[in-house]
Amino acid sequence: MSRQAPASAGRVTLVGAGPGDPDLLTLAAVKAIASADVILVDDLVDPRVLAHAPPSARIVAVGKRGPYCRPGAEPSVAQTSTPQAFIERLMVVEAAKGLHVVRLKGGDPYVFGRGGEERAHLAALGIDVRVIPGISSGIAGPASIGIPVTHRDWSQGVIFVTGHRKRAGDEGFAPDLDWKALAATGLTIVVYMGIGRCRAIVDALLAAGTRPDLPAAAVQAASTDRQRQVVGTLVSLADDVASAGIDSPAILVFGDVVRCADERWLRVAQDAPGAPALLVAER
Amino acid sequence: MSRQAPASAGRVTLVGAGPGDPDLLTLAAVKAIASADVILVDDLVDPRVLAHAPPSARIVAVGKRGPYCRPGAEPSVAQTSTPQAFIERLMVVEAAKGLHVVRLKGGDPYVFGRGGEERAHLAALGIDVRVIPGISSGIAGPASIGIPVTHRDWSQGVIFVTGHRKRAGDEGFAPDLDWKALAATGLTIVVYMGIGRCRAIVDALLAAGTRPDLPAAAVQAASTDRQRQVVGTLVSLADDVASAGIDSPAILVFGDVVRCADERWLRVAQDAPGAPALLVAER
Repeated sequence: MSRQAPASAGRVTLVGAGPGDPDLLTLAAVKAIASADVILVDDLVDPRVLAHAPPSARIVAVGKRGPYCRPGAEPSVAQTSTPQAFIERLMVVEAAKGLHVVRLKGGDPYVFGRGGEERAHLAALGIDVRVIPGISSGIAGPASIGIPVTHRDWSQGVIFVTGHRKRAGDEGFAPDLDWKALAATGLTIVVYMGIGRCRAIVDALLAAGTRPDLPAAAVQAASTDRQRQVVGTLVSLADDVASAGIDSPAILVFGDVVRCADERWLRVAQDAPGAPALLVAER
Repeated sequence: MSRQAPASAGRVTLVGAGPGDPDLLTLAAVKAIASADVILVDDLVDPRVLAHAPPSARIVAVGKRGPYCRPGAEPSVAQTSTPQAFIERLMVVEAAKGLHVVRLKGGDPYVFGRGGEERAHLAALGIDVRVIPGISSGIAGPASIGIPVTHRDWSQGVIFVTGHRKRAGDEGFAPDLDWKALAATGLTIVVYMGIGRCRAIVDALLAAGTRPDLPAAAVQAASTDRQRQVVGTLVSLADDVASAGIDSPAILVFGDVVRCADERWLRVAQDAPGAPALLVAER
């Protein structure tokens, strides 16, 4: 995987930028950003992490959802969706100039972050590529409202899946996840990018025999200004999410560990007029 | 969960110290350590992270395996195993003095880290408690040898479980994990603290119908000086681990994502005389 590149060649660092809060960057991530010549930024990355970039660095928005830029500046690439092939080509071109290219990704590059594909592509071309892990939102999102994804009393493990699927026609298209098999494990289930399919996921888990009163939660944009959350049960979650207006990006959590959620979120929800039945924490 | 504590009261921060490499600490972790009066250190924490501690901070070893201390200094608690109740009491006592107590845990406090129990205990006593996520070794370990735990072509998700079980007689004792249910998901399986039970886990997965040539790997002490790794297949892993002398702490990974492992590890293993059949990366 690591063909020897010429000493003068550039390099690429795939950096996990964590869930949002710039304090959740690792020291390694800060060092990589601070030494970057070019920074490719996903749109799930919090713009505040770019404060570590040197003034000379070129910031390129490569989001899948919309333009992105250094806070206060105009986006350098004003397209609303960046094809993966374009991103990979850009990294290759800039590294070939001898530059240090930093690819900033929300969360961790190797947890639903396409880091595996990008690293393989770059390494196959002989480009020096390094990957720096980041705090994944599937762990930090629940943690931000007091939920541990594992707990000795309630869950011997946790499953991370994505609600976002390859589309029919895509190479490697797979049918939906086997929710019945997931439910049969009895482990905590955390769904990334599943908010748009929340009701379908809930229905799949109910059809798999999961008990309707299993505690469940949704956390939007954890550790950012836009964070919102709702705590309920499997059967209430889709309505809870709708009435709270929780939107993408968000994490869904299903499991008894949700009982650990901080009381304040439970109370806020219970005080809301017309709020659906919500979990009462048992502690 | 958060009863109001007096303004002059101390506080506790449960800090994820990541897998080992001090550069994988978050900025929030560094700030917490740097402002600590007392630091309780688990034995899975790399001593190098204590370089951020102020000279005045008292470092207390609370490992489950052996004494621990600031590099070069004598351990302040020279016991070989620290009961959980002692650790929780110590945090309460020190916080009651108005001190900032930092509890440093390897990886992430909420991923097999007992963070949920400790936070609940402290919060129930009205102590201000905060949790800072860390890079979990179940993600960073595989990443350190090129393995992404998810990959669009190979795995729609990942399962994290622990090989370490509550003992018979412990409150809440549960039988072994349902390996058949785990295998039926088809997702990547990452096992924490499973190296001592590697052969039993492999046998359970084989009995569950997992194909013998499923790629598998073990990573010991990722991102530390003591890191070692072996890449093979489900059927070879237990022998691979034994012949490579991989020991605790280590992470086991089962899944097609292991194909992404860096060639260097595959080559090293293949070059070893008498090495068992190992995966040849398909790229």
